[in-house]
Amino acid sequence: MNEQILNPYYDRLPGSYLFSTIAKKIKEYQASHEDADIIRLGIGDVTTPLIPQVISAMHKAVDEMALKDSFRGYGPEQGYDFLREAIVRGEYIPRGVNLDPGDVFVSDGSKCDVANIQELFAEGVKIAIPDPVYPVYLDSNVMAGRTGVIDSIGHFTEVTYLSSTAENNFQPDLPKNPVQLIYLCSPNNPTGTVLSRETLQKFVDYANANGALILFDGAYNCYIQDENLPHSIYEIEGAENCAIEFRSFSKTAGFTGIRCAYTVVPHQLQKIHAMWNRRQCTKFNGVSYVTQRAAEAIYTAAGWQETQNVISGYMKTAALIRNELTACGYTVFGGEHAPYIWWKLPKLANGVQEKSFDFFDRLLSTCEVVGTPGSGFGPCGEGYFRLTAFGDHEQTKVALQRIKERL
Amino acid sequence: MNEQILNPYYDRLPGSYLFSTIAKKIKEYQASHEDADIIRLGIGDVTTPLIPQVISAMHKAVDEMALKDSFRGYGPEQGYDFLREAIVRGEYIPRGVNLDPGDVFVSDGSKCDVANIQELFAEGVKIAIPDPVYPVYLDSNVMAGRTGVIDSIGHFTEVTYLSSTAENNFQPDLPKNPVQLIYLCSPNNPTGTVLSRETLQKFVDYANANGALILFDGAYNCYIQDENLPHSIYEIEGAENCAIEFRSFSKTAGFTGIRCAYTVVPHQLQKIHAMWNRRQCTKFNGVSYVTQRAAEAIYTAAGWQETQNVISGYMKTAALIRNELTACGYTVFGGEHAPYIWWKLPKLANGVQEKSFDFFDRLLSTCEVVGTPGSGFGPCGEGYFRLTAFGDHEQTKVALQRIKERL
Repeated sequence: MNEQILNPYYDRLPGSYLFSTIAKKIKEYQASHEDADIIRLGIGDVTTPLIPQVISAMHKAVDEMALKDSFRGYGPEQGYDFLREAIVRGEYIPRGVNLDPGDVFVSDGSKCDVANIQELFAEGVKIAIPDPVYPVYLDSNVMAGRTGVIDSIGHFTEVTYLSSTAENNFQPDLPKNPVQLIYLCSPNNPTGTVLSRETLQKFVDYANANGALILFDGAYNCYIQDENLPHSIYEIEGAENCAIEFRSFSKTAGFTGIRCAYTVVPHQLQKIHAMWNRRQCTKFNGVSYVTQRAAEAIYTAAGWQETQNVISGYMKTAALIRNELTACGYTVFGGEHAPYIWWKLPKLANGVQEKSFDFFDRLLSTCEVVGTPGSGFGPCGEGYFRLTAFGDHEQTKVALQRIKERL
Repeated sequence: MNEQILNPYYDRLPGSYLFSTIAKKIKEYQASHEDADIIRLGIGDVTTPLIPQVISAMHKAVDEMALKDSFRGYGPEQGYDFLREAIVRGEYIPRGVNLDPGDVFVSDGSKCDVANIQELFAEGVKIAIPDPVYPVYLDSNVMAGRTGVIDSIGHFTEVTYLSSTAENNFQPDLPKNPVQLIYLCSPNNPTGTVLSRETLQKFVDYANANGALILFDGAYNCYIQDENLPHSIYEIEGAENCAIEFRSFSKTAGFTGIRCAYTVVPHQLQKIHAMWNRRQCTKFNGVSYVTQRAAEAIYTAAGWQETQNVISGYMKTAALIRNELTACGYTVFGGEHAPYIWWKLPKLANGVQEKSFDFFDRLLSTCEVVGTPGSGFGPCGEGYFRLTAFGDHEQTKVALQRIKERL
């Protein structure tokens, strides 16, 4: 086959998807260490089983699928009304945001939505992306040919980076070049830090003044412990005219294995709302009915309480990691309103800053603990390391004990 | 917001997605006819509940998700090995096709895969599409800016159409212009006709000789009753070097509401295999574990038998439609190896060919029966009408009685 028929931009992507690279490294270590007792605080995957309310809702939905009168075939591509309404009632009304259920598009994952949304925009649109951040925003734009080529420090030439580091208290400045699409992530993956109301207002005002659009990833909003911090971009004045919000049940309710998320495209963004609807109707066929009933169940009184208990459990683990590392003399960020701890790696004895991928290898070989190298999330993540609070609490204790003793 | 930042190609799409237009027409009819007793033989949605083997596999999987030791989080983006292996064992080995399970990519729907696959190709690639055919092949390429603009007969200027009509016995000729991507659909949606071994060999030879790629949609293969007809493109010599195949559990096992499909990208297509893998890892997060266990269950001995019984039921309905319309003096195609009947509309009393959308309205108002206008699948579908055999058998009988008496 003639390779000229292929999309040339895939060749601009870094070697492989970050988490695939890490999975491969772990596999290799295991192959050469038969008795390895690896503790994984790497990938952001949950470990607590689904709550009883969700389990019983799923059984009920499965039973409906067994009978002619209650069987469901194709559902609406946008999601069932029962779920769209439950989301508005459960997530937005309590935060003072009066959303139209017709603005909520249910999907099988935020990764899909956040990667697909760029299809709605022109090829030459200029984008701004936090650094460090979840790699999908960048990768999906690289694939679409929107980013230019990678430079020596690992930045793409046509992308504006919003550095989010300890130096600016993880509150990025406005883009210096004109941009039309701005990705924001709060609580941030990987730093676990939250964008303040002031920072968000600044970005919303910029977008409204400059005809730009904000793509706001709030996949971890349920971990915010301080009620005064913004959970949704729509708590910010003017955001309904310039922002799309991505949310997921993956981390909220442990749905990584059963797949459900949603994206809010306000009807105020008339043409974009119509385009996303068209995109979903043409390229997507809705989420499993069983999964949608599962998601609905977290908004019952009992389901909500059970969900909060699971979240509290993870946050207890986050506090443990934060406290233990701090007690060891390390500097850490995050872990207070997010399940991620952003660990600043100390300089080596010779004064040199250890690379985060080298630290990955060292942590694996000395402690058999897996985390995620910060540089995997962008050049500003170099010198940092991400640990997650999604692992088993007792196992995480063991991991921290090993770090304390062996590192 | 500045509309110049939007993808300009969405504006080239026909007004709305075909099935949304139809749903709207039905809704309007119902609003003005309170007592309407509409029988839907329109959208290709199944009505028979999930088989017992699938139901019990789903309950078992849901129970696993309730316990810490058996809970599953993120699965492989490509699908679990248990399902990829079951597909090869259940679908391909019996047809003499020796496929590598690593070439099977499990997804949440063929619509998604068939729409997303074009992302792997260069913007300027020339495509060939059957006419008439399932609208997603065309629409996804329109959105990507690959088709040029629509002309007065409804063809896009940069697309090569492979007309599939009674005149050529629904066996399209090779493209006259050079093309690099060729969509084929067999059994065809909407005509219900099957591409012969000779036709497929001709296309495979063309692709191999010209460095082109075939995108083969076999979503309805399980309805083929004649074992000598090809079910898979990989039954054709040389296809593993030039073809991708799309398959779905939607119509095979009634999964339209629980979402599972798969796409075969042979490892022989080295770079395309790697690109699709990268695309799925970056923009997709796998299919619900519960759904994958459901799909696996159809390949047990009992599950396979139950599945065949459901298919036989639909084919009994297809035969009913075919026979009754034929008895009324109409000419029909399909319905022998597919759940679709392609009804040639007779000329009106004045000798004029009735438009298929006009016939839709007339059938709805005189018989309260819904079908799909042929022109919705391409200009060559004008003058035809699609009925599906997925409806309730007894209801379909009533619909045919009404057609006989009232039309």
